[in-house]
Amino acid sequence: MSYLDRIAACNRYDPSRYLTFDVAGRAVGRVDRDFAAMLRAHPTVFRVGAETVALDPALADFESRSRAVEAVLRHLAEDGLIAGWRDEAYPVAESFSRPALMRMERAAIPFFGVPAYGVHLNGIVRTDNGLGMWIAFRSPDKPTFPGMLDNMVAGGQPIGLGLVENLIKECWEEASVPAELAATARPVGAVSYCMAVEMGLKPDRLFNFDLDLPADFVPVPRDGEIARFELWPIEEVAARVRGTADFKPNCNLTVIDFLIRHGVIAPDDPDYLEIVAGLHG
Amino acid sequence: MSYLDRIAACNRYDPSRYLTFDVAGRAVGRVDRDFAAMLRAHPTVFRVGAETVALDPALADFESRSRAVEAVLRHLAEDGLIAGWRDEAYPVAESFSRPALMRMERAAIPFFGVPAYGVHLNGIVRTDNGLGMWIAFRSPDKPTFPGMLDNMVAGGQPIGLGLVENLIKECWEEASVPAELAATARPVGAVSYCMAVEMGLKPDRLFNFDLDLPADFVPVPRDGEIARFELWPIEEVAARVRGTADFKPNCNLTVIDFLIRHGVIAPDDPDYLEIVAGLHG
Repeated sequence: MSYLDRIAACNRYDPSRYLTFDVAGRAVGRVDRDFAAMLRAHPTVFRVGAETVALDPALADFESRSRAVEAVLRHLAEDGLIAGWRDEAYPVAESFSRPALMRMERAAIPFFGVPAYGVHLNGIVRTDNGLGMWIAFRSPDKPTFPGMLDNMVAGGQPIGLGLVENLIKECWEEASVPAELAATARPVGAVSYCMAVEMGLKPDRLFNFDLDLPADFVPVPRDGEIARFELWPIEEVAARVRGTADFKPNCNLTVIDFLIRHGVIAPDDPDYLEIVAGLHG
Repeated sequence: MSYLDRIAACNRYDPSRYLTFDVAGRAVGRVDRDFAAMLRAHPTVFRVGAETVALDPALADFESRSRAVEAVLRHLAEDGLIAGWRDEAYPVAESFSRPALMRMERAAIPFFGVPAYGVHLNGIVRTDNGLGMWIAFRSPDKPTFPGMLDNMVAGGQPIGLGLVENLIKECWEEASVPAELAATARPVGAVSYCMAVEMGLKPDRLFNFDLDLPADFVPVPRDGEIARFELWPIEEVAARVRGTADFKPNCNLTVIDFLIRHGVIAPDDPDYLEIVAGLHG
């Protein structure tokens, strides 16, 4: 078991399984061949070719694309194919900083291999005994990754909300961090990965933040997604990430990035350069 | 002018120009076609094929490989092809953590496209007015990049010396940092790049370190490679990196990595994700 195993677990997919997902002539995602076959039943919205799934060009603007696709997605959800509908819209765009070409229900995003973005926060306490990190225990009732370990705060990035705005909101909802304290979180970089999921692909990017917390601050779950928090010495966090698959897979990357930046993983680790490269796969 | 320009300047090369450099059946570098043609004059050492330059397999161990190649390299240096002989041996290996298959004179390393490794240090002062960074001005007499800006301390990684050992040695030689202070430098990650040079290739990796310096510490040049040092507010460092090509090209990457990790470059920069990915090209 090693840090590279954690990175590899987030980077498993077979590139030959996917067609390009094309909106307005721009490649914005990748569609699994089996899912593409299902989209053939909706020819007024999706044009399924040999190598490309393209939105019908007659859908010429943001609203018409978003609505036409949503109608199909609701059918697929009723059929039970798309589970866990959240009523949360994600942007579909050429890149994070380009204007969205359409919005799409979050639960459907992986089926179209559209990159999703998240904000992940390392909650840190500096004591005389070294660094401590607050670890979240996901609720046993959560539909995804129940009971697994998580970063103190983490959330997907919906359309129409700034990254820092979203971080502050998630800090409050997940851990009762007051806005003034959350606003002191420092952006520290990003990690990327690409993993196959059931009939889909997640080529995602996480924006990482470090937040120094006062020794007397205790995060408290608010929205039921997190069962509880524990403050661990950083060496214990490192050992858990390295030696187990107890963390939700992508959260390992945020922690490993922290361990690299803070010298907990040092260059005498023979995997050092491969770990650093692996975080930006 | 942008951070991406600085990254692009370190990542210009034409992959079709290079043959694989093969030692003991392992691909350890890449050789420019023109240089490969010159190596045909030394058939007892180099076997030059259509896609590969291989060391003669009769050179079966570290010493025999190192000596046979050095003899050829000395000829090429006498002919003026390899300039700036340093009498400093670099390892040739499959990766940083694998045992070296041979040693090679540093000045010849780019001709064989063998990855070189360096230690680069950000010398930091934290004041009430924010972060300051010590900037080195390279000597006008240095054969490479004379007069350009540089990280406070930076050095290539020779064979047979540990990274931290090397860093401590360079800290003393370049900036008069006492060993006890240099030993507090924190490893913070690595950057990588691949740039074509005259008849060669540099697919290099830099191990980055941050060193917090006392406000009253002043680095002093010792070995003549650096002309002087200046302490700049971090915003001025950022503006200089972003807006000019005044830094030695690869030193920009160490600074940009610092700016990302410390939140000076923030995710509201539309290039943010591309910058982060570009540091690990």
